[in-house]
Amino acid sequence: MSPDRTACWWEREDLGYRNNALIFAGHSVKELAEQFGSPSFVYSFDRVRANLNRLHKSLNDVGLSDRFSILFAMKANRFAPLLANLKQTQLCGIDACSPNEVELAVSCGFQPKQISFTAGSLSVLDFSTLARYDGLFFDCDSIHAIRKWGELKPGTEIGIRVNPGMGISREANEKLQYSGSKISKFGIYQEQFDEALSTAKEYDLRVSKIHFHTGCGYLTPQLEYWESILEKCQWFIARCENITRVNIGGGLGVPHTDTDQALDLEKWAEILMRQFGASNLHIEIEPGDYLLKDAGLLLLGITYIEKKKDTVFLGVDAGFNIAPEPAYYDLPFQPVPLELSNEEYSSYHVAGNINEALDIWYENASLPNMEAQKYLALLNAGAYSASMASNHCMRGHFKEFLLA
Amino acid sequence: MSPDRTACWWEREDLGYRNNALIFAGHSVKELAEQFGSPSFVYSFDRVRANLNRLHKSLNDVGLSDRFSILFAMKANRFAPLLANLKQTQLCGIDACSPNEVELAVSCGFQPKQISFTAGSLSVLDFSTLARYDGLFFDCDSIHAIRKWGELKPGTEIGIRVNPGMGISREANEKLQYSGSKISKFGIYQEQFDEALSTAKEYDLRVSKIHFHTGCGYLTPQLEYWESILEKCQWFIARCENITRVNIGGGLGVPHTDTDQALDLEKWAEILMRQFGASNLHIEIEPGDYLLKDAGLLLLGITYIEKKKDTVFLGVDAGFNIAPEPAYYDLPFQPVPLELSNEEYSSYHVAGNINEALDIWYENASLPNMEAQKYLALLNAGAYSASMASNHCMRGHFKEFLLA
Repeated sequence: MSPDRTACWWEREDLGYRNNALIFAGHSVKELAEQFGSPSFVYSFDRVRANLNRLHKSLNDVGLSDRFSILFAMKANRFAPLLANLKQTQLCGIDACSPNEVELAVSCGFQPKQISFTAGSLSVLDFSTLARYDGLFFDCDSIHAIRKWGELKPGTEIGIRVNPGMGISREANEKLQYSGSKISKFGIYQEQFDEALSTAKEYDLRVSKIHFHTGCGYLTPQLEYWESILEKCQWFIARCENITRVNIGGGLGVPHTDTDQALDLEKWAEILMRQFGASNLHIEIEPGDYLLKDAGLLLLGITYIEKKKDTVFLGVDAGFNIAPEPAYYDLPFQPVPLELSNEEYSSYHVAGNINEALDIWYENASLPNMEAQKYLALLNAGAYSASMASNHCMRGHFKEFLLA
Repeated sequence: MSPDRTACWWEREDLGYRNNALIFAGHSVKELAEQFGSPSFVYSFDRVRANLNRLHKSLNDVGLSDRFSILFAMKANRFAPLLANLKQTQLCGIDACSPNEVELAVSCGFQPKQISFTAGSLSVLDFSTLARYDGLFFDCDSIHAIRKWGELKPGTEIGIRVNPGMGISREANEKLQYSGSKISKFGIYQEQFDEALSTAKEYDLRVSKIHFHTGCGYLTPQLEYWESILEKCQWFIARCENITRVNIGGGLGVPHTDTDQALDLEKWAEILMRQFGASNLHIEIEPGDYLLKDAGLLLLGITYIEKKKDTVFLGVDAGFNIAPEPAYYDLPFQPVPLELSNEEYSSYHVAGNINEALDIWYENASLPNMEAQKYLALLNAGAYSASMASNHCMRGHFKEFLLA
């Protein structure tokens, strides 16, 4: 970092400027862009491992050692080399939500017993495909699913996904509410829970896990409310005779803007300890964003810079279809230059190449003079980006690289 | 139709109930679903042709015969058999927005001169690929594009996409605003237009077309405002010496709900006649939705029906990722049963199989008892559905069929 420069909010040891050049995971990002071309997603596995270790440490530190499992929500990023590397760490299993995801996880080396499956609205073919994977842990999202699984796998253990009727999300973003006051399709409510338990008994299934996913992208300010959700879930846990596990889902967020604070993991782990420490329950956590999001950059080629009316647009060579979060969920991906300069900064609208009004990456980005730069990086592109990409306008091409 | 039944708002000659069975383009939809399986998109080319003929007739009727071209916006639906059939009608050309779209259109039999290209933020490779197609008509979306095209194709004709700073959309949906009061990336504003014209001259390009796309999904109530946009565009037209064509973009909408009225095409064509009749301008129109949307159904398999809290959910075997409009743009796709029954109707939330809060196809759908039915159809799935599909959660599989 230049001695006279204030670090940007997102800079950290493995991501930031050295001699005015953006460095990520030990690489010059400009050199990466020149080598790989654009659009390219680059992922730092070191950062993923650091995120995973931080989670482990926070849980170990509060005294939950050997009482928790981390299950990576692979819907966040299913790049096969990443999954293969995750398997090698032996620090996490997999949260899968479709039979194809189970098959891909297994193809990358995970054993079925390291995979927890949670999803709703399964077809007959889905159920029979899943039943072929002995050891796969199946969470039932409906009474219907309990019946179907019971027909295929009587005598086994299951989880039940419950819906506490409370939920959280980053800044009350309604699109990310899984279990708020609005009735959602997810899980089984208190009103139907006794029927769910008796159905499990009827099919000779042992309910050994309660699963609840209560939100998305929560940070420290949401933790107090999050604890009240966990409290509410105790009602479900108390009604299960054979419960040995509780799965608290994912939802751990990362900062998207300079006003976001990183999630206070110590506080988060203390809440888990307070809620479940006295029990003997094993705790499962299903992070997606938290492991991957800040471990990925999207490298885009700059196509043009031009004033339209009184706004300067900076065009790039890919649009919202390859990373839909900014357009669809209003989650900003901060654009950062690959090279700093001492010139004055000005304001740009960063726009993609799709013929749609919502194809704007970022409005009013403060950037140095970009005329001499060929590429731009977007932060936080490691999760729910490539995995949600479409070929809209036949602009679906991109590359992915796991940085060594 | 049963004699004692009131027709649903969406029924028409080629789509509706006969002896309580849903018929589409002469087929029993239940038989189609049983044969094809689900999820499947089925498209009626007869309906597409009827939509195309209706557009032709409305323009012929106001006296614009031989003075217009219909260019299908292929981003709405790029199913190759459909494109090949459209080519055979000789009733339309193609509006393409990426080099890959141009190549696909040509692969389906369209000649480059039948293709109009309009898009922004093009890369150097995009420009050189497009330049290989002699006869392709290129609309410049920025002054930058004028320069780049001029370097590659001096002495040719171009169009300029302009931005009148006014726009419309269905019910003021901000996500579908292309050119409203908010500054958008699309086209060249009045403030920069003289520079655009002088740049074209500098590169020996003849500006023979003005293009403006001003909205999305407009219906009759929006026509008055739409005319005021056309009036505003006359400012641009008047400044071009060699103009022979005006391209008014697409945006013609179709009804999504029982309160929507079909677009009054007669009124629409009269506006075009009023605005451009006295000139000798050839008028280009780029419909996507209007040609395809109501020509397609999405057939979904029913996975479960279950009460959650006090709401009955009807699960289906595909989610918003294969047809994103309902989730992302709040454009409802009406669910319709393949068989009617005389039983009382009740209310269902139709939910997909994706682990995301916004994966709800329709809330409070009024449907007969669905316990005995295996499939459900969604209306208006012919455009901006399959073409925008993603493989999110690895649930991206679907089939498409052009009905003969």
